Amino acid sequence: MAVRVEILTIGTELVTGLVVNTNGAWLARRVTAVGGHVTRIVTVRDDEGEIVGALREALSRAEVVITTGGLGPTPDDMTMACVAKALGRRLVLNEEALEMVRRTYAILYEEGVVKSPEMTPEREKMAMLPEGAEPLPNPVGAAPGAAIEHEGRLVFCLPGVPREMERMYEESVEPRLRRLTGASLSVTATLKLDCTDESSIAGVIREASRAFPWAYIKSHPGRLAREGRINVTVTVFAGDAETLSTRLEEVERFLKERFKNMGIRVISSDENHQ
Amino acid sequence: MAVRVEILTIGTELVTGLVVNTNGAWLARRVTAVGGHVTRIVTVRDDEGEIVGALREALSRAEVVITTGGLGPTPDDMTMACVAKALGRRLVLNEEALEMVRRTYAILYEEGVVKSPEMTPEREKMAMLPEGAEPLPNPVGAAPGAAIEHEGRLVFCLPGVPREMERMYEESVEPRLRRLTGASLSVTATLKLDCTDESSIAGVIREASRAFPWAYIKSHPGRLAREGRINVTVTVFAGDAETLSTRLEEVERFLKERFKNMGIRVISSDENHQ
Repeated sequence: MAVRVEILTIGTELVTGLVVNTNGAWLARRVTAVGGHVTRIVTVRDDEGEIVGALREALSRAEVVITTGGLGPTPDDMTMACVAKALGRRLVLNEEALEMVRRTYAILYEEGVVKSPEMTPEREKMAMLPEGAEPLPNPVGAAPGAAIEHEGRLVFCLPGVPREMERMYEESVEPRLRRLTGASLSVTATLKLDCTDESSIAGVIREASRAFPWAYIKSHPGRLAREGRINVTVTVFAGDAETLSTRLEEVERFLKERFKNMGIRVISSDENHQ
Repeated sequence: MAVRVEILTIGTELVTGLVVNTNGAWLARRVTAVGGHVTRIVTVRDDEGEIVGALREALSRAEVVITTGGLGPTPDDMTMACVAKALGRRLVLNEEALEMVRRTYAILYEEGVVKSPEMTPEREKMAMLPEGAEPLPNPVGAAPGAAIEHEGRLVFCLPGVPREMERMYEESVEPRLRRLTGASLSVTATLKLDCTDESSIAGVIREASRAFPWAYIKSHPGRLAREGRINVTVTVFAGDAETLSTRLEEVERFLKERFKNMGIRVISSDENHQ
């Protein structure tokens, strides 16, 4: 059974359009690649009511919830407090997380980046986690993340700074996700068609999507296909390499035959293994 | 009172991370600039249950819902059917929308882009709108959008192709939104600080945010501020130019004084009028 994953990206800069949500797309791609089924990406501002509400809704729908943003020292960083509230847990000083923060500021002080290595209330705030949470190390930043198991759900809290988030996802989240999904392989093939009318291939896409529910097949117009050619992408997932290539071949054979019958030439066909 | 706006971006390519949600950020920025309060950006896949569910939730929270994506000829384009279902309306062939689609394909045929100007079921599908919807012209694509008034709410359906969406937002959505918010002016000032420790200015940001609730004040670290300087952005909104500049001056004066007292120099200060 598919593991449903919901991504909650937190930050007023996102809902005011100051920042494009590249974290959401990056996580979605990575989660999909290991066989997770991302049902929703939700973005809310730095507002307790909004964050707690969105967390509760996500937990009611998905097995895994990944949050990004709101872990820093400033007052608008309130993700940990909101996760605690949404789960009905206390927000407590996590000794392991405190040690991580302490080590980071000791290094930053040695490097001359900060004026003092002492813990301040703002720095200590980054070690406040929901009770029972496991702190996730942040090798490239100050704020630790968190992994929390709750009534059969898994919540991961990651920072909003992309390079911190990406590193922590790869080191601390993806390995656990792979264990849940069982499938670790995926491949996307792109067929470039000698065709500019997307509506003419709609029937074939529909037919193929019905025939291969485990494949994601989509046509991509080039600006209403006035200048560009239509691309069709086929993404398949599997737990082993053999199943993966068998599935991809099956879909590609189906599509190529249909296009041939319609007089549409496949200009090129690329495979992108992940 | 603030007009709450929720943005619903629809597309499996978004929740699988094949496409970064630039539409969400673009819309959020534009809506914010005219005084709308974007509470949430939600992304769902091309799935009827997911889309209808997300629409109903959005309508329960916001006065205005803007959707992007899912208006094309292919079977996974199902936004109009889902909006009809969420609002309890029938999906009907809209004669005005049909005329728009017909004109587009006549032009595409003349330009040699499509093989036939005739209406097909796929093309006709793009003129199927919720009953009572007003079709919105799409000057750069085939699928019309829709504006629907429903129990004091406003729903706008726009295409997913960015240049189509942007043009239609500017021509058909923004003017109506301005009438709702009353405020048409905003300005963002960026203060670049001679400071690399974000946690040291957290208190000032908190203080200023409390003092000026109509301003959005945020510190932006440069990669944990190891290499970079911290920027502080201040965005204010108002219905007239005088209020706008008064408000911005007030916040800037407050921040500059506080930073001066802390020995933090403001390296530069830019204003970005919108």
